[in-house]
Amino acid sequence: MGRVTQRRGIVRVTVDGAEVSAAPGPDTLAAEEPLEIRVGPAGGGPRPPLAVTMRTPGDDLDLAIGFLVTEGVVRDAEDVRTAQLCAGDQEPNTYNVVDVALSPGVPAPVTDPSRNFYTTSSCGVCGKASIDAVRTRSRFDVAADPVTVAPAVLAALPDALRRRQRAFATTGGLHAAGLFTAAGELVCLREDVGRHNAVDKVVGWAARQGRLPLAGHVLVVSGRASFELCQKAWMAGIPVLAAVSAPSTLAVDLAEEAGMTLVGFLRGPTFNAYAGAQRVDGAAPAAAAPTAAAPGRGSRP
Amino acid sequence: MGRVTQRRGIVRVTVDGAEVSAAPGPDTLAAEEPLEIRVGPAGGGPRPPLAVTMRTPGDDLDLAIGFLVTEGVVRDAEDVRTAQLCAGDQEPNTYNVVDVALSPGVPAPVTDPSRNFYTTSSCGVCGKASIDAVRTRSRFDVAADPVTVAPAVLAALPDALRRRQRAFATTGGLHAAGLFTAAGELVCLREDVGRHNAVDKVVGWAARQGRLPLAGHVLVVSGRASFELCQKAWMAGIPVLAAVSAPSTLAVDLAEEAGMTLVGFLRGPTFNAYAGAQRVDGAAPAAAAPTAAAPGRGSRP
Repeated sequence: MGRVTQRRGIVRVTVDGAEVSAAPGPDTLAAEEPLEIRVGPAGGGPRPPLAVTMRTPGDDLDLAIGFLVTEGVVRDAEDVRTAQLCAGDQEPNTYNVVDVALSPGVPAPVTDPSRNFYTTSSCGVCGKASIDAVRTRSRFDVAADPVTVAPAVLAALPDALRRRQRAFATTGGLHAAGLFTAAGELVCLREDVGRHNAVDKVVGWAARQGRLPLAGHVLVVSGRASFELCQKAWMAGIPVLAAVSAPSTLAVDLAEEAGMTLVGFLRGPTFNAYAGAQRVDGAAPAAAAPTAAAPGRGSRP
Repeated sequence: MGRVTQRRGIVRVTVDGAEVSAAPGPDTLAAEEPLEIRVGPAGGGPRPPLAVTMRTPGDDLDLAIGFLVTEGVVRDAEDVRTAQLCAGDQEPNTYNVVDVALSPGVPAPVTDPSRNFYTTSSCGVCGKASIDAVRTRSRFDVAADPVTVAPAVLAALPDALRRRQRAFATTGGLHAAGLFTAAGELVCLREDVGRHNAVDKVVGWAARQGRLPLAGHVLVVSGRASFELCQKAWMAGIPVLAAVSAPSTLAVDLAEEAGMTLVGFLRGPTFNAYAGAQRVDGAAPAAAAPTAAAPGRGSRP
C-alpha cells in the first residue's frame, strides 16, 4: 500500500470491571498528507497554488484533475495540457504538490481575495449567491438521463464496495467512493481520509479516461451524502448518487434541482430514495409515475 | 429542534428476494446550510467575508467565534467586540451570515489572494510550510497539562455522548463533539453535519464563557480524528482528544508534537492510545512511565 497506510506503535487498553490491561503493539493507520494543487497557463513562471486538500497519498493526478472538474475549473482532461507531481518549494521532495498547466485557451481560475479560506471541500460554496451559481455551472443535463436501476442491484452495492476496500480493512479510517454501472458492475473505486477526495479521485480517473459525462452510472459513497458530494456528482454528469449513511437537507435540495437520484441509508436490502425515485425500478411514487401511457401523450416519441 | 432538522417526503424501499416494496413516507433529515463569517474592525464599512462553512443552523455565534479561535484569528472572546447574525446581502434574511467586529487593537486576518480556496475545514493547512506554522501558533502548552483520566471514565464517554445526541437519534446524520471533565462529567455537547463545526461550536461556547484554555478536559468526537480536529483541540488548550473511530497519521503526528493525548477507536471497554498514553491511568508504556518515584526526584514537589 506504500504511503496509503503507515504502522505506528500504540497502547491497546481494555477495561474489564476494575481490571485494566494495557498492551503496547503496532497498529496500521490511514495516511493523511496535504496536497497542494497549482494551476495556470502553460509556459511562463511558476503557477500559483489554487487549493490544498488533506488527502491520503495515491492517485494524486486523478485527485487534482477531478478536483478541477468538480469545481468547474476545467471541463475535462482535454483542458489540461500537463499535470505532474513536483517538489514545489519543499526539500526533500514530499510529492505533495501537483502542478497543472492548462491547455491553450482555457482561462486560469479567478482568485478572489475576499474568499481566502473555506471550510468545506465544496469550495465554490459561499452562501446563497454561490449556491445559485452552482446550479448553472454543471454543463451536464443529468435530469434527462433515462437510466434506471434495479433495487436488487442497489442493495448489493455496499457489499461490493466494502469487499474491495483494501485499505479500510486494515485501518478502519478511510472513506470510499465507488463508480458502478447501472447493472452493478464496479468501474472504479478509490479510498481516502477525505470523502470528497475519494469522489474527486474517481471523477479525475474518469476524466483522464475520456469518460465524462458519467451518464448511466451510479456513484456509491461509504458515508453521508452532503451538498458537496451531490455537487461533485452533478459536475461529473452522474445521475444516481447512493450513500450508505444519511443525506443532508441541502443534498436533497440540490439533487431535486439537478434532476439527480439520491439514495440514502443504503444498507443491503433496505434503502431510502430521497430524490429522483423514478430511476429506482418499482419505487416511483404514484404521483410522479411515468406518463408515457397517459391519453394523448403516449403516441409522441 | 427548529432548523436543526427538517421533514421530507421519501420512498422507503425493501428488497426481499424478487419482491420489492416501496412505501412513500416522511423522514427527518439533518439540516445543512451555509454560514458566512465576516470579520473586521469595529466601525467603518461592511466587513469582508473570511470563510464560509456548510453547517447545521444553531449556536451560530459560538460556531463563528470558535472558528476564529481555532484558526488563530482571535485569542478568546475578549478579542471580539460584537458578533451578530445579520442578513448580509440576502433578502429575505436567511440568518446565514455572522458579522464579527474585532476589539480595538486586534489585527484583522490577512487575506492572501494566493489562498483562495481550501478543501478542508482546517483552513490554515496549506502544505508543509503551514503545518510548521500551526506548530507554533497555539498559545497553550498542553504538553504541560498534568491531567490523567481513568480508563473506566474514558470507556463510558461514547455512551454518554450518544445518549445526549438528540438530533442524531432522529436523523442519523449528525456528528457530535462533547467536552467532558477528566472525571467524565459532560460540560458541553454540540451536533453538526460537519464534525469540525461541532468542535468549533464547543470551543466557541467555552471562549464566550471565559473558559479558555480548556486545561484538564477531554474532547470526545463521534467520528474519526483528523489533523484538523487535533489542531482545533490544541488551539483550545484541550489535553485529551478521544475519537470513536480511527485517527489519521497526521493527527497522531500533531498530537505527539503538541504533547496531547490522542485516543482512537473508543468503543466502550476497549480503546487505543495513539499518543500521550501517560495521561491514561495504567496505560503508560514502561519506557515513558512517570519518574516521580525515581531516586533523587521523589522528594521534589
